[in-house]
Amino acid sequence: MKTKALLLAAIAAPFAALATAPAQADEGMWTFDQFPAEQMRADYGWAPDQAWLDRVRASAVRLTGGCSASFVSAEGLILTNHHCVVGCLANLSTGDDDLVANGFNPADRTEERKCPGQQAEVVTKITDVTADIKGAMKGLDGEALVKARDARVAAIESENCSDRETTRCQVVTLYGGGQYKLYQYRKYSDVRIAWAPEFQAAFFGGDPDNFNYPRYALDAAFLRAYENGKPVTTKSHLKWNPRAPKDGEATFVVGNPGSTQRMLTQSQLAFQREVAVPITLTTLSELRGRLISAMDVSPEREREGGDTLFGVENSLKVYIGRTKALNDPDFMGKLAAAETELRAKSAGNAEIGDPWSAIESAVDDYRDMYLAARFDQPSGDLYRYASALVRAAAERTKPNGERLRGYTDSDLPLTEKRLLDAQPVHPWLEELRMEWSLSKAREYLGADHPQTKLLLGKESPEGLAERLVSETKLADPAVRKALWDGGQAAIEASTDPMIVYARRLDANARALQKRFDTVYDAPVTAAQAKLADARFAAYGDSQYPDATFTLRISYGKVAGWMENGEMVPTRTTMGGAFERATGAQPFVLAKAYSANEAKIDKATTYDFISTNDIIGGNSGSPVIDRAGSVIGAAFDGNIHSLGGNYGYDGNLNRTVSVSTAAIQEALETIYPAPGLVKELAAK
Amino acid sequence: MKTKALLLAAIAAPFAALATAPAQADEGMWTFDQFPAEQMRADYGWAPDQAWLDRVRASAVRLTGGCSASFVSAEGLILTNHHCVVGCLANLSTGDDDLVANGFNPADRTEERKCPGQQAEVVTKITDVTADIKGAMKGLDGEALVKARDARVAAIESENCSDRETTRCQVVTLYGGGQYKLYQYRKYSDVRIAWAPEFQAAFFGGDPDNFNYPRYALDAAFLRAYENGKPVTTKSHLKWNPRAPKDGEATFVVGNPGSTQRMLTQSQLAFQREVAVPITLTTLSELRGRLISAMDVSPEREREGGDTLFGVENSLKVYIGRTKALNDPDFMGKLAAAETELRAKSAGNAEIGDPWSAIESAVDDYRDMYLAARFDQPSGDLYRYASALVRAAAERTKPNGERLRGYTDSDLPLTEKRLLDAQPVHPWLEELRMEWSLSKAREYLGADHPQTKLLLGKESPEGLAERLVSETKLADPAVRKALWDGGQAAIEASTDPMIVYARRLDANARALQKRFDTVYDAPVTAAQAKLADARFAAYGDSQYPDATFTLRISYGKVAGWMENGEMVPTRTTMGGAFERATGAQPFVLAKAYSANEAKIDKATTYDFISTNDIIGGNSGSPVIDRAGSVIGAAFDGNIHSLGGNYGYDGNLNRTVSVSTAAIQEALETIYPAPGLVKELAAK
Repeated sequence: MKTKALLLAAIAAPFAALATAPAQADEGMWTFDQFPAEQMRADYGWAPDQAWLDRVRASAVRLTGGCSASFVSAEGLILTNHHCVVGCLANLSTGDDDLVANGFNPADRTEERKCPGQQAEVVTKITDVTADIKGAMKGLDGEALVKARDARVAAIESENCSDRETTRCQVVTLYGGGQYKLYQYRKYSDVRIAWAPEFQAAFFGGDPDNFNYPRYALDAAFLRAYENGKPVTTKSHLKWNPRAPKDGEATFVVGNPGSTQRMLTQSQLAFQREVAVPITLTTLSELRGRLISAMDVSPEREREGGDTLFGVENSLKVYIGRTKALNDPDFMGKLAAAETELRAKSAGNAEIGDPWSAIESAVDDYRDMYLAARFDQPSGDLYRYASALVRAAAERTKPNGERLRGYTDSDLPLTEKRLLDAQPVHPWLEELRMEWSLSKAREYLGADHPQTKLLLGKESPEGLAERLVSETKLADPAVRKALWDGGQAAIEASTDPMIVYARRLDANARALQKRFDTVYDAPVTAAQAKLADARFAAYGDSQYPDATFTLRISYGKVAGWMENGEMVPTRTTMGGAFERATGAQPFVLAKAYSANEAKIDKATTYDFISTNDIIGGNSGSPVIDRAGSVIGAAFDGNIHSLGGNYGYDGNLNRTVSVSTAAIQEALETIYPAPGLVKELAAK
Repeated sequence: MKTKALLLAAIAAPFAALATAPAQADEGMWTFDQFPAEQMRADYGWAPDQAWLDRVRASAVRLTGGCSASFVSAEGLILTNHHCVVGCLANLSTGDDDLVANGFNPADRTEERKCPGQQAEVVTKITDVTADIKGAMKGLDGEALVKARDARVAAIESENCSDRETTRCQVVTLYGGGQYKLYQYRKYSDVRIAWAPEFQAAFFGGDPDNFNYPRYALDAAFLRAYENGKPVTTKSHLKWNPRAPKDGEATFVVGNPGSTQRMLTQSQLAFQREVAVPITLTTLSELRGRLISAMDVSPEREREGGDTLFGVENSLKVYIGRTKALNDPDFMGKLAAAETELRAKSAGNAEIGDPWSAIESAVDDYRDMYLAARFDQPSGDLYRYASALVRAAAERTKPNGERLRGYTDSDLPLTEKRLLDAQPVHPWLEELRMEWSLSKAREYLGADHPQTKLLLGKESPEGLAERLVSETKLADPAVRKALWDGGQAAIEASTDPMIVYARRLDANARALQKRFDTVYDAPVTAAQAKLADARFAAYGDSQYPDATFTLRISYGKVAGWMENGEMVPTRTTMGGAFERATGAQPFVLAKAYSANEAKIDKATTYDFISTNDIIGGNSGSPVIDRAGSVIGAAFDGNIHSLGGNYGYDGNLNRTVSVSTAAIQEALETIYPAPGLVKELAAK
């Protein structure tokens, strides 16, 4: 349930699809304009009204790194997870001042520090633009359809967000192409770290405990949004309530689930199971191993690689969970039965036709190009910089409607920010990632494949990675800025080896994208729109779309689940951490815990579970009670939740959250922050 | 098609099963007492007679490291693969004298050097003991059945091989329990390396080219069997014929395929696909990554870890191939259809009953214990030593018939040899393997599992591995010898931390073995015997048993296959290696190739392919022509052969061999060995 899971999941899931069976109790990542109030009222005897929903929506924050959060004071204070800020802490750390290990607790606001590349966004308006977009695509197919759609999307985004300093527009595809909506955001580009505990407190139990429960993790941190050098005023914010949750009480999780694939058709699921997921398991596991040994060389590397390793291990666990789900005959049988039922209900409806076969045919075509598309470019921040610079230079010479995604007028500001914000670059880590990805490309494509020859020429993955990383100057933000500002002429004239290399790969990568658009994206988008129609026709309006890293609300309750014949308790206490500690990593108590043991109220509720339906990207989401107060921050799911990508099982799937009671205890006695305590208590 | 594939395959394949459909053309790993001469004659117009078979059988050598080989002179000279001796070369290397990198080419026989742990074996007699063993098991089930069977096996082996210096007896289970045969071997415990090319010549193309074709690899080496300090006289040997193979000519591969699982039932295949293989992919990939980065630290580590990395990468490719096969609907559909057919043909036969359901039930029970059984003990040579010492001490106090496998009178000599032969131990590598395996145990069992607590106590995988490896003295063969000789008293008194640790884990591991015997081994053995009966009843006598690392003969022909609409040529030439070389690893030419380029006859046939049905363990097998001469040594399979574990496809599966013509060229011009040239040419 971590940031990187979301980002990496996108590799294997190029396109979100839509759901094909009616939602179970507590299932659903609902959009705010279609909250199923009646259904909730039937189950819970109560449901929020529009005013409640509007207030909550205005307090919900999306972090562009791939997390969720919420405003919890009128002065721009943001609650999120520690693991959503650990990259920021690492970027701000030095050998002498390790903010990951030691935490960050400034004496006052003036010492709050800017997180490179971070941006906070709040939804201000949602507009249905389905008719507009579908009109633009009418009568088209293949590449023409994709071009027309993308051009119309770029135009709508550009027209509605002329102020690119403080607003952002995004057209979102819902139900896999059934609906298109324009989301408008108020954005904050200056986000600073305001408080973070020690890593050892936030991630106690480490990878072994990740996606497991019971947990004893203070996975919480505070950020603050700034503008013009001052904290922003945020009238809309959640009320902080540092109380323990009650068993059975209704809870809402409000955040941005990144991606689900609940309504993949059988042919798409087969492709996941047979091809995509095994490759991900295998290659990510090797990367994990490479990182572990490379970091073992020195404490400095341990620190520098920590965030990357965490992301890889987290993603890997997600894919191990997906593998289990995809190989579980009962689970897969239910998905197959749902498809069979929808097909039966849609039989003879000429408007719907046979989208399943259309998708199957597209999947067959995609299989033929999959390895090439997957291994078209190497990993690493330096290559990412080079590729973005090369592409941006070319794209910016085109009209807005003809540009690649990421380079339209509305996308460019964030692309530029991510490219130019200063961030430390660790050459050993860059080299490791490049070498790994290039050697995997050669392994899966074969040494004789033309694309392998394009990627490597006569060099080895090791030699090429070493040469590019040691000779490029792109680690310097000023060099990047000069190339960005210099545009196409500067890119063409550059002799920086990483730029030269990105130029060499660009045409092939663009051709693969075009082929993907033609053989997969266009027909699948059209077919999924039909599937959405089929589903609405069969099951009525109360359907939620697959997750798309846009704002959703999930309702559920504080509840355990049955494991090996016993009910798992809903909460842990802070005292439990002391019992679980072994003295060996990752079960070493954080220093401040040991030091303050006598003062800590061990009965304080620490982490707790609820039935809310969430997924990667929801990390940091506020857990909200009936009164609209925040009582926790979601940071993980239990092991059963890993199948949640494909389907929700209310008997087993659980959200794991850190309680506001525990955060309050930390703010008062473990990592004292009297200023924040006061700010959170303000009426 | 490499040594380690065989060894590691055993992890996921605790029990070989039997085949359920009639053999296709060229399919089959036949036992010498059931060669399908009629079938071959029908296809090829010729088949070998008994004298031909007897001669060949007496020349075939099994290497206990997991490879095959053959005598090729009257003075004990053995042809095998380079990758079968690379461990020996590494063990004999020092920083100043790297026999892996430089090859080994002694001026004369007196400089041939003993390979630690290596033993060569030649079958002298095969006796059917089915009635004897089945009689002992009669009326029993569960643990009692396994005990009775093992006791009778131990007794037969002991009675028939009283001279344990030069003979070895093994009772082999064939057809998964349908037959039991006693194999008697002449054994040679002093095996020396006589000639090996540079690693870069033997493994040109490295992992990217492994299991691929076309190939340009001189994967050949010579060993020599000694007794009493002198080369043994081997009247039975193959005639060396350094000629190119002819397209379409009949070829025989004679060797010891390690393990196939061609007749797993659907429930066993599902278990492989859903559980066992994904875990292997994931954990081995991580080990690979850990090794790659750890070896990157220094040239010394690169050398010390090379053989281990090779083994891991080789196994991994095997499992990637199995994953593809298990996820190929056509391939799996054929296996399912074969089972359906056999069930239909057996319906109503009360003698056969329903072994499929019995196996399914056993698989269900095995699923429950699988993770515990898989992660019961750590990896590493030092731990292996400790565990063998602890077990041997206890087992040797028991009557022969009650001992664990590996510790019966007939097994003890090899166990002792493997334990006491001097071999270099690399602490960093030991620590890496222990740490990896212990961290995987914790990951898959969970931090709270009792077995995790048994394995780790309050230590971390990293801390425990570091402590045990740095403090144990078991790297010293004299220390191991003292503990071996001291027996149970010495083991109980030992304070060596690795011995203490092995003692701690032993009871749990034994309990798991007992549970496995009861819930899986006993019922599956009984059910597989029924399946064998069903198969003989349905398809007649001409059936081959699954591979069991015992001597088999496969017939086929030199032939290409269709790939992307084109026929792959049957052979490569030595000149092709010069064209393929890029100057970057693993495509750097061996030094002696570059140095002798002008002298080398580039038209010499290098590697070639044939339809022979082989698998891991066959590495080093002689490829024999109709005249009974050796014309190559099998060293690999093409990528399609990786599904061969589950089934053979004659259109696609190919054996890859190095030609005797190429070896001869190497002996004459690249790594000149006039003594061997003369010896091989002797009449």
